[in-house]
Amino acid sequence: MIDRDNGVSYYHQLSSILIEQISNGTFQQGNRLPTENELSKRYGLNRHTVRRAMERLEDEGLIYKVRGKGVFVANTKIPYKVSKKTQFTNLMLSAGLTPDSELLNSYEIAAGNEIAEKLNIGPSDKVIALDILRYVDEIPFCHTVSFLRADIFPGLRGLLNGLYSIYNILKKHYDIDMQRVSSNFEVSMPGDSEMNILQISAKTPLLVVRSISKSQHGDMVEYCTTCFRGDLSSITVDFNEDAKGTEEIQAAK
Amino acid sequence: MIDRDNGVSYYHQLSSILIEQISNGTFQQGNRLPTENELSKRYGLNRHTVRRAMERLEDEGLIYKVRGKGVFVANTKIPYKVSKKTQFTNLMLSAGLTPDSELLNSYEIAAGNEIAEKLNIGPSDKVIALDILRYVDEIPFCHTVSFLRADIFPGLRGLLNGLYSIYNILKKHYDIDMQRVSSNFEVSMPGDSEMNILQISAKTPLLVVRSISKSQHGDMVEYCTTCFRGDLSSITVDFNEDAKGTEEIQAAK
Repeated sequence: MIDRDNGVSYYHQLSSILIEQISNGTFQQGNRLPTENELSKRYGLNRHTVRRAMERLEDEGLIYKVRGKGVFVANTKIPYKVSKKTQFTNLMLSAGLTPDSELLNSYEIAAGNEIAEKLNIGPSDKVIALDILRYVDEIPFCHTVSFLRADIFPGLRGLLNGLYSIYNILKKHYDIDMQRVSSNFEVSMPGDSEMNILQISAKTPLLVVRSISKSQHGDMVEYCTTCFRGDLSSITVDFNEDAKGTEEIQAAK
Repeated sequence: MIDRDNGVSYYHQLSSILIEQISNGTFQQGNRLPTENELSKRYGLNRHTVRRAMERLEDEGLIYKVRGKGVFVANTKIPYKVSKKTQFTNLMLSAGLTPDSELLNSYEIAAGNEIAEKLNIGPSDKVIALDILRYVDEIPFCHTVSFLRADIFPGLRGLLNGLYSIYNILKKHYDIDMQRVSSNFEVSMPGDSEMNILQISAKTPLLVVRSISKSQHGDMVEYCTTCFRGDLSSITVDFNEDAKGTEEIQAAK
């Protein structure tokens, strides 16, 4: 509700209320917002104030007008489905989006304690690190650092010229069928390098997903950390997917 | 690396680098940080500057010292495992934490288009809304608004006195065994009401999880939105859990 005594302008209070209702899902993508008249009555504000609040939301790209139909909540998020077999390229194509990937760096290092523990190897065992930036419709969307067991994927770095799917390369050259074992979701604010790579400000939170994948033989073969732009990402996990998810993705190709 | 020309103090640059390395997982919970001597050499800084940077991290609760052993990354996140059958209370107890819940509000309303679509019901069909704040070790941890089908759970609001598990009440009184179908993860910045309820500042991002659950008969019975404090939450999805997850949680009780 509008607080008439806190010194904050009414239009600003109303736009904050509406932004919250959009971000908490009261109004979701594609929903029609109440009319200016309805909002004016509901919050006891004049229509000029309501209009100013709506203009702010429109400026921020949160809503859009359709002539004769009303004001709707914009789609500001890119849907991303995490399953046992998520493939970025196929997922984006099936959503009608244009994916692209850039290998920023690759190197081979000793696993160290942290990665060794995730992959059930020794800290001095070697892993191949792949540093990949992924784009959606030419917007930097997520930044992944992936660590793969060097003993299982010898010579991998030599196979990475071009923008092939890592999963397909592992399947084709090593006959390894990777499957996600677990994913961990955290939020963090970006540091300088993530701001730089993803072209975001210090105010854009990241959705950080850390996943472990195994081969069809049961070995843990990959540990990767992906920083998604929090303002663009909507990640869904389907708990009922089995082989189904994979087929859908393949079919969409 | 330290930029000697950008006017930002060296200790501040170093602490920013270390904070990023903690938040992006280069240094994870329980990892020992390099010594002051090592950091001093690595970044070409004197030890006084390194010490000041470390003090900043310690002040922010990101690291802690163990005499004679070094400096370690603190556990600032509460682990939360999302599975087909997550139960907040049991999860927290098994992590050695003290859970508590507060029913802020409950009411019955028409589903509306959004919720109706998730639950496969008509927009004018009634749902019961439960507005619940959950605490961990007396800290407000997450805020849930849950919508349940009123036709399947008649009289539910009368059964909610006390801090029982909703899942247990549904099982006991309605013989409904709820199971999660899907969860969607997004990041958002908090609005005024979430700041107020979760006692956070405008700078603390939220991890927003929207889940759909079904009964053992296959009906979609619950749609809920939970806003987790992003600074405290680490949510893991296990893609290999079947009945296993439930047993572990039960056993930990």
